[in-house]
Amino acid sequence: MIKVGIVGGTGYTGVELLRLLAAHPEVQLTAITSRKEDGLPVAEMYPSLRGRVDIAFSSPDKVDLTQCDVVFFATPHGVAMAQAPELLAKGVKVIDLAADFRIKDRAVFEKTYKIDHTAPELLEQAVYGLPELNREDIKKANLIANPGCYPTTMQLGFVPLLKAGLIDAGHLIADCKSGVSGAGRKAEIGTLFSESSDNFKAYGVSGHRHTPETAAQLQRYTSDKVKLIFTPHLTPMIRGMHSTLYARLTKDVSNEELQKLFEDAYADQPFVDVMPWGSHPETRSTRGANMLRLALHRPDNGDTLIVLVVQDNLVKGASGQAVQCMNLMFGLDEGLGLQTIALMP
Amino acid sequence: MIKVGIVGGTGYTGVELLRLLAAHPEVQLTAITSRKEDGLPVAEMYPSLRGRVDIAFSSPDKVDLTQCDVVFFATPHGVAMAQAPELLAKGVKVIDLAADFRIKDRAVFEKTYKIDHTAPELLEQAVYGLPELNREDIKKANLIANPGCYPTTMQLGFVPLLKAGLIDAGHLIADCKSGVSGAGRKAEIGTLFSESSDNFKAYGVSGHRHTPETAAQLQRYTSDKVKLIFTPHLTPMIRGMHSTLYARLTKDVSNEELQKLFEDAYADQPFVDVMPWGSHPETRSTRGANMLRLALHRPDNGDTLIVLVVQDNLVKGASGQAVQCMNLMFGLDEGLGLQTIALMP
Amino acid sequence: MIKVGIVGGTGYTGVELLRLLAAHPEVQLTAITSRKEDGLPVAEMYPSLRGRVDIAFSSPDKVDLTQCDVVFFATPHGVAMAQAPELLAKGVKVIDLAADFRIKDRAVFEKTYKIDHTAPELLEQAVYGLPELNREDIKKANLIANPGCYPTTMQLGFVPLLKAGLIDAGHLIADCKSGVSGAGRKAEIGTLFSESSDNFKAYGVSGHRHTPETAAQLQRYTSDKVKLIFTPHLTPMIRGMHSTLYARLTKDVSNEELQKLFEDAYADQPFVDVMPWGSHPETRSTRGANMLRLALHRPDNGDTLIVLVVQDNLVKGASGQAVQCMNLMFGLDEGLGLQTIALMP
Amino acid sequence: MIKVGIVGGTGYTGVELLRLLAAHPEVQLTAITSRKEDGLPVAEMYPSLRGRVDIAFSSPDKVDLTQCDVVFFATPHGVAMAQAPELLAKGVKVIDLAADFRIKDRAVFEKTYKIDHTAPELLEQAVYGLPELNREDIKKANLIANPGCYPTTMQLGFVPLLKAGLIDAGHLIADCKSGVSGAGRKAEIGTLFSESSDNFKAYGVSGHRHTPETAAQLQRYTSDKVKLIFTPHLTPMIRGMHSTLYARLTKDVSNEELQKLFEDAYADQPFVDVMPWGSHPETRSTRGANMLRLALHRPDNGDTLIVLVVQDNLVKGASGQAVQCMNLMFGLDEGLGLQTIALMP
Repeated sequence: MIKVGIVGGTGYTGVELLRLLAAHPEVQLTAITSRKEDGLPVAEMYPSLRGRVDIAFSSPDKVDLTQCDVVFFATPHGVAMAQAPELLAKGVKVIDLAADFRIKDRAVFEKTYKIDHTAPELLEQAVYGLPELNREDIKKANLIANPGCYPTTMQLGFVPLLKAGLIDAGHLIADCKSGVSGAGRKAEIGTLFSESSDNFKAYGVSGHRHTPETAAQLQRYTSDKVKLIFTPHLTPMIRGMHSTLYARLTKDVSNEELQKLFEDAYADQPFVDVMPWGSHPETRSTRGANMLRLALHRPDNGDTLIVLVVQDNLVKGASGQAVQCMNLMFGLDEGLGLQTIALMP
Repeated sequence: MIKVGIVGGTGYTGVELLRLLAAHPEVQLTAITSRKEDGLPVAEMYPSLRGRVDIAFSSPDKVDLTQCDVVFFATPHGVAMAQAPELLAKGVKVIDLAADFRIKDRAVFEKTYKIDHTAPELLEQAVYGLPELNREDIKKANLIANPGCYPTTMQLGFVPLLKAGLIDAGHLIADCKSGVSGAGRKAEIGTLFSESSDNFKAYGVSGHRHTPETAAQLQRYTSDKVKLIFTPHLTPMIRGMHSTLYARLTKDVSNEELQKLFEDAYADQPFVDVMPWGSHPETRSTRGANMLRLALHRPDNGDTLIVLVVQDNLVKGASGQAVQCMNLMFGLDEGLGLQTIALMP
Repeated sequence: MIKVGIVGGTGYTGVELLRLLAAHPEVQLTAITSRKEDGLPVAEMYPSLRGRVDIAFSSPDKVDLTQCDVVFFATPHGVAMAQAPELLAKGVKVIDLAADFRIKDRAVFEKTYKIDHTAPELLEQAVYGLPELNREDIKKANLIANPGCYPTTMQLGFVPLLKAGLIDAGHLIADCKSGVSGAGRKAEIGTLFSESSDNFKAYGVSGHRHTPETAAQLQRYTSDKVKLIFTPHLTPMIRGMHSTLYARLTKDVSNEELQKLFEDAYADQPFVDVMPWGSHPETRSTRGANMLRLALHRPDNGDTLIVLVVQDNLVKGASGQAVQCMNLMFGLDEGLGLQTIALMP
Repeated sequence: MIKVGIVGGTGYTGVELLRLLAAHPEVQLTAITSRKEDGLPVAEMYPSLRGRVDIAFSSPDKVDLTQCDVVFFATPHGVAMAQAPELLAKGVKVIDLAADFRIKDRAVFEKTYKIDHTAPELLEQAVYGLPELNREDIKKANLIANPGCYPTTMQLGFVPLLKAGLIDAGHLIADCKSGVSGAGRKAEIGTLFSESSDNFKAYGVSGHRHTPETAAQLQRYTSDKVKLIFTPHLTPMIRGMHSTLYARLTKDVSNEELQKLFEDAYADQPFVDVMPWGSHPETRSTRGANMLRLALHRPDNGDTLIVLVVQDNLVKGASGQAVQCMNLMFGLDEGLGLQTIALMP
């Protein structure tokens, strides 16, 4: 059994980790920290876990996380970088669901997140936890930077095309729509039910933190200069993410070849589903499941290719992906504990 | 492996059965019928099942259901009564999720559902599939009448009080709220998103089909005449049911005794959760899970006891309960395949 | 033109007042205060008001509210009682949308709201602003205690029955469901979209602040002792309130007489709509409109009468009712500025 | 008073016309037809109109629409073209909210809508009812083709840029999101609450009927060949449309100049609101109001300009726009009856 600790278990990625790990056959939930909720049984905050999770939140100063085999950080940016060095030094693996280790370039990180990086020496060894693109590195990693939810969809949608050299890397457009849970479990007016229900809006259009992360990752797959327009929108649903990706084709390629390119790219990937050409994937087809589905469209057979990508932002876009990484890091079957079928309706 | 057939798999209880059974370790999905969708792979209608359910819908006349060990009817009223006799005669167990065998009194059934009962000889042997109250009978049953969603909450909330003779059986009030999926997957204007979102209404207040079923079941636990006021409401959520039950106490009893009464009643029931006195259970704490949660309140310590009951109408209120019955009928662990934790948020 | 001031315009009842008053032909919006948003144009916070409301929020210490003819308090409890005495002394009328003057009995108020009452001398002169029951007093009032949203529905549903002496006053049950906007525009986790969407729950079942207010008002119409069970629930919709009222009939009365009782009671009330016997009013039929609709049911013609009542909690349940009072206080047509038709769908 | 008839008043654009026209000071609702609902009082189908609309639906063969001054067609495609010739011949003005007269090129129309055009002689005289672009023609028109909801947003967002010759007309991308009411009030499974709530999907990506209409209109403002990629999405909200428009700048132009271009273009337009540069308009800021709001963004000051456009699809996107046209056709103030402020929250 893998002894697992969670730092910051009161947010949505935290409780989603709890849901997944409580049902994972090789995991023993050992510690979950929250300074504010010290002593509170987890199941009192989240009655959905009654009878399934017996531990209580502990104040960070009362628990020894070095007894764990792996620690997940479901915290705001800045926490993992403070605690990871000691844990790693003591042989504990670390999976950070926040941004601390996602951007290799320290200066870009600090400009993007407006905080100093206090563990820059770890940036090099941190592995970007997208199994479909970095599986072998993840297996050997001690420190995982779990990708952001938006970046997961953009990379899995654009990378096959960039690798194949078929599109104009300088004019990528990602029009992305997220459920409200992506904003986290914070007391804020903007994400109140009465503010975000029956409403739709874009946000951060002039600049979002996920743009540099995604652009840097995409750049790894092409020698052309990547230029990405990323437009996030807030959608009145709890979970779910739909990214509508626009790429301009620069080579003469048939629709069949495009479809085959994606099918081949993801043939052995258990958590990527390439749907038939012209499908319209729905976010709900992934609700609660560690699955990303995508489909291709090419209006009027012109030079614009559209990739529709859906996932559950809290599962394949966050906690499920983190567990997928954990499985790989510990030599387990990649899909262990991740076989839940999407809830429909 | 149990060979399972499903008649009428295109509705919400049908696809919910598919979700549960596809992950059940002792089940082999053998046949699923739909006259209209003959030949269509199930996963094309429900992409959430891609990679998990490989069979296609078959027209009823093309498939031999007598090869199954058990057949679930997720059909409108009237279908199971037509097909059950032959299946039972050939040794196939039958679980009907509709109302055909829920009401023992044929005349009451026919008056309530306005159809003739074509298999009245089976009414006697049919077992009402509420494991918490009828477990031993279910284990021996060949024909299960799976309870309605509303009746499940009303019975599990009122029965301990009736059994103990603590309340006025002649003045029971059940103010119940259901998610829209309870109305089924039918092309109707009343349950369109634009009609039922951001809206709340009662329906069937002057008489609902679940009233006679519930009253007859409740009557089994008291010699006083049961009189039940049942007021269903449509709530703008997909899944979930919240029943607010009002009972007038007729005996001098303390709150502690009342709480203990319920805790004792459900101490060994894996799918009923008696929450601490004064809790407010939320429907989402059962979303996707085979679980019913309840809590007691007594305003001003007066003579009115309130029982708050929640469940997922499609799971404990329908398909999960049916699988629970199947497990009992086949001598399996009652909770096999029913361990999914509720999706939160 | 009536010069109007609003204290506390950043919440939902405040912005709803702005919507109504900006379109009111006899109103000049003169001042709106907010300590936190001093200087911010109202339309920047609420773009729905762009081009329609030109004033900015002012810090309370920068604006002289005594220049107004009437001041609305859309504030938390405790603010109006602090400021009303000076305004009234200078001849400014006051309409308080909070609870400060709703309960005549100071001790009950202080026990219920857990604050001292600092202007108890005004409790006597304050008029409870429910025009359908207190119209003549409102016309002469200088200080209005605008009723709570729940109490409005309970009173308009129960009072005709109590007045006529037809029901058991000692066993009134009100099972009420409110949209989330009723919880106000406060940064809180419990009313986040991801917490309250696709979910339903009761709250405050063991005791809610609106119970003493309602019970005291109901008591005015009967010599029997009123005992009210009030169970509020949170419903995943923005606006709307549905109260399901249960009363036990104590006299022999026909359904026709009951229907006529209500039709007569509200025959001349422009904002109460008695629907045909057995109707199921929907909350959306009042969305955005100053209208309360109700309908009667009597299951099995037994001794329980059900009154279904709907309104928009922010209009007839709060700001619309306040404007209705203002019209009466200033001798205007009662419906001026309140003719908006409900938004459907 | 203008005598108004409505053909097909049972759908969402029909009931929205009723809401607007019932409050219009110069309109007398004279007839509303529905073959299916003949004799049913309108307010029975739509209780929101109780006390405000007194007429009943009439079968088309029982009512003489030639007594009207203007007839609105809120019908499926094909109905207006059948009835308009006779009405026009008798001097009745016609406003068609469907597509029959939106596309001047008969062949394109017939290919797009897959029906024969039975009144091609009227295509020339029909005026495209977008007041911001065609006001003078509308004033003189007898037959109005009211624009589709999506096309309204795309035209008002792209046309100032095309007119000014600032963008690449051959690579326009419109990523549009619509509330579910845009799909109409039809009994269909796809738009059930349980199917479209808590879900997001694209549809018609490979080809939507609004593309030829929009492309043809946009073409009027540039000599370059217009090529439009239009991607519609279904959003879990009742009303509202958000179009995210992407245009590639081909000229050296400053952000200030771009902002001024739009502000000048819409300076005198009462129902278009150009928000400050970098704003994120929300659909709810137009809920129920005849208003379109837009804002400009230019990520990293690069060559991609983003125009965010919001409206209520049933008001400025349909029925409100139709009333705006009616006002112009009859020489009334353009905004008469269209001053409702958006409902917020």
